[in-house]
Amino acid sequence: MIKAIGFDADDTLWHNESIFDRAQQRYRALLAKYHPAAEVDRALFATEMRNLPLYGYGVRSFTLSAVETAIDLTKGAISAQEIQEIMHVCREMLAHPVELLPGVVAAVTQLAADYRLIVITKGDLHHQERKVAESGLAAQFHAVEIVSEKDDATYVRVLRRHGVAPAEFAMVGNSVKSDILPVLRLGGAGVQIPYHLTWAHEHTDESPAAHPRFRQLESIDGLAAVVAAL
Amino acid sequence: MIKAIGFDADDTLWHNESIFDRAQQRYRALLAKYHPAAEVDRALFATEMRNLPLYGYGVRSFTLSAVETAIDLTKGAISAQEIQEIMHVCREMLAHPVELLPGVVAAVTQLAADYRLIVITKGDLHHQERKVAESGLAAQFHAVEIVSEKDDATYVRVLRRHGVAPAEFAMVGNSVKSDILPVLRLGGAGVQIPYHLTWAHEHTDESPAAHPRFRQLESIDGLAAVVAAL
Repeated sequence: MIKAIGFDADDTLWHNESIFDRAQQRYRALLAKYHPAAEVDRALFATEMRNLPLYGYGVRSFTLSAVETAIDLTKGAISAQEIQEIMHVCREMLAHPVELLPGVVAAVTQLAADYRLIVITKGDLHHQERKVAESGLAAQFHAVEIVSEKDDATYVRVLRRHGVAPAEFAMVGNSVKSDILPVLRLGGAGVQIPYHLTWAHEHTDESPAAHPRFRQLESIDGLAAVVAAL
Repeated sequence: MIKAIGFDADDTLWHNESIFDRAQQRYRALLAKYHPAAEVDRALFATEMRNLPLYGYGVRSFTLSAVETAIDLTKGAISAQEIQEIMHVCREMLAHPVELLPGVVAAVTQLAADYRLIVITKGDLHHQERKVAESGLAAQFHAVEIVSEKDDATYVRVLRRHGVAPAEFAMVGNSVKSDILPVLRLGGAGVQIPYHLTWAHEHTDESPAAHPRFRQLESIDGLAAVVAAL
């Protein structure tokens, strides 16, 4: 019997990767006169991965990596105006309004009546708090946990903090790697609702498909029925 | 009777503003051929304050504001290499080892035996977690609360989460504005241990000097005695 449900936020409650994707398209266009798109993408991702231990996740880290990559790729030939434009593109991501995914308000409102709901999300504290506030969903959630990494240790800590046994917990999210696998390992349940885009860093070859406590849904609409049957 | 003690981290447990200060000296030197130091400082602080609602606190926000200010102040004349150098200076702040303030290990270890200790700090989730881990003090603390703002609402939320009544809580920190005044307003106690540098944003004209639950210490050494007498 599930008592508490964890919700990933980015690409589960609201659009996120599509906003990064549009920014990255503009970034590629800005650097198109220097390098082909595939090379820009490859270099940016390599910079992001190299900086991750120092910078962590979020738009500000993406921005710093994007500027660093642009200077590297152009061997310093890029102008200050072009760097300013890159920073402007990234800044718009931070200022972008929250766009809830279809069915989220109905599903979250319905589930809040029967379960303890907890947002569990990676990323920047400040930006994620602003998005939760702007989403209008804050009152439906018992707690909002913004974490620096979504690994087994993080889920153990969050569940302990809220007095929830793993067996009574289901995590809902788009990322198999961050939202599903760690929770299944702890004895919880995982419901994946894929988003149409996945950041390369979230890719995993491990599939939870055969796990008895794993479910996959096309949209959040059927979530209440799936959780009730877990 | 105090049961729980909140500790600010930056400039209370370890050096921070001095690291920002050294970075800002190098930033001024980099821009010295364009503008006098006072003008650079003024422009950078104005950018930081303008960006605060969107960026929040922390080194990455400082970096983005520093690059933006440098492009503005030079009307785009700054080179990509100079921007790279600014980013490098900022990056060193993130990589800077944690330098505990004198007496911190002894005071925290002693107090942990008698009180529930909670780190309550602003800034970047990822960077602050790394600093707590690197400090070697993590085991002494019941919890680490990294928050996006230190206002009355934040302290109410943190105290509620840990089941601590404000009257049984003392906050220890260097900033009157962030560490002392909100806690005194809620009915808690505040012990200020000033740091030799204060970020302009933390300045306040309000003095808690006359408040019966306010104490000021020159160093952390006398903290146990002061808290016992509160």
